[in-house]
Amino acid sequence: MGRTSDARERILSAGSGLIETRGYSALGIAEICSAAGVPKGSFYYFFASKEAMALAVIDEQWAEQKTMWTGVLGGDASPLLRMRRWFEATEAAQRAGQLNCGAVAGCLFGNLTLELSNQTEAIRGRLQGVFEEQAAMVAAVIGEAVERGEVAVADVPAAARGVLAQLEGQVMFAKLYNDTARLGALWENCLALLGARVPAEEDDVAESV
Amino acid sequence: MGRTSDARERILSAGSGLIETRGYSALGIAEICSAAGVPKGSFYYFFASKEAMALAVIDEQWAEQKTMWTGVLGGDASPLLRMRRWFEATEAAQRAGQLNCGAVAGCLFGNLTLELSNQTEAIRGRLQGVFEEQAAMVAAVIGEAVERGEVAVADVPAAARGVLAQLEGQVMFAKLYNDTARLGALWENCLALLGARVPAEEDDVAESV
Repeated sequence: MGRTSDARERILSAGSGLIETRGYSALGIAEICSAAGVPKGSFYYFFASKEAMALAVIDEQWAEQKTMWTGVLGGDASPLLRMRRWFEATEAAQRAGQLNCGAVAGCLFGNLTLELSNQTEAIRGRLQGVFEEQAAMVAAVIGEAVERGEVAVADVPAAARGVLAQLEGQVMFAKLYNDTARLGALWENCLALLGARVPAEEDDVAESV
Repeated sequence: MGRTSDARERILSAGSGLIETRGYSALGIAEICSAAGVPKGSFYYFFASKEAMALAVIDEQWAEQKTMWTGVLGGDASPLLRMRRWFEATEAAQRAGQLNCGAVAGCLFGNLTLELSNQTEAIRGRLQGVFEEQAAMVAAVIGEAVERGEVAVADVPAAARGVLAQLEGQVMFAKLYNDTARLGALWENCLALLGARVPAEEDDVAESV
């Protein structure tokens, strides 16, 4: 039991790494098994197909990322400060990935969206679910900032989508230029998108820098 | 001569369509030749490799898109109105693509960035070149708006990158949801990112709707 669940983890870890560096389409199951050090039979014991494995990779990565997002976007700090910390945490995560593997990997969900959303409906649906959860989490924080009169937003869900689009776009450029400094623009872009009145936040925010 | 150049065009057209629908990595040269109706030898007469063909696809697509961008972003209208028309033209192009092939294809350059930028340095370099030309075109228009006092932008190149990131992010979501209506947010997002003073533009802009 211990060994089989270890095999599943190794397949997911190898699959996730290979998808990150080489994309999904070009991967073969034999290559994943070889990287995971498991026989093919073991792969099919856990996953019906490469697609099923990719769905599990998405679920696992989102569960992990959601924990980080919940920690940073939740909490007692002011909503704008929490958003700033969320961008800093995103930049730190991309920088750690770059140190690990030599290149900014970008966002797994964005990568798969652009590679696959027109090819597999199962993956499209799962990615939509992830981005909807993300949008709801960001909208909740923006909603708090609206209540405090700190931002000028007429449509909170649309503003959350705009902030996420900005994040995905800048992460794309960070990947293209293999340069996490691109993500330094996120905070100012976010303030502009939200029509934020920063002065009220400045002291608070300065402390976190 | 007429026939060989026709074969090159057919290879590029088939390659472009297949990259759009299936991505780059999973494509084989045999498949491209079959879709183009040319023998393999013909492919290698024009292109040293699949990568060389992809570079030519990028060049051709950017040449075509640049013509559209130059037309829309240039001209005599006010800078903000030209930017608004540029978003409308982008939405129209994605809508036309969706009507043609049933799905929003997104941006070829963004798709290839997320699929490939960590795999082939030649393609990464070419895509960087495309995005730098794009950023320069957008920065030129923002610079005009700054001179007219219509936007509040401290760093014009950074603002252009922010607008392009927003565009790529929203195009990603349009592809994920197969819904070009997502692009309707671009104009307001752009005004917010630029700290635009819209009232001065309203009459002008209203006419174009």
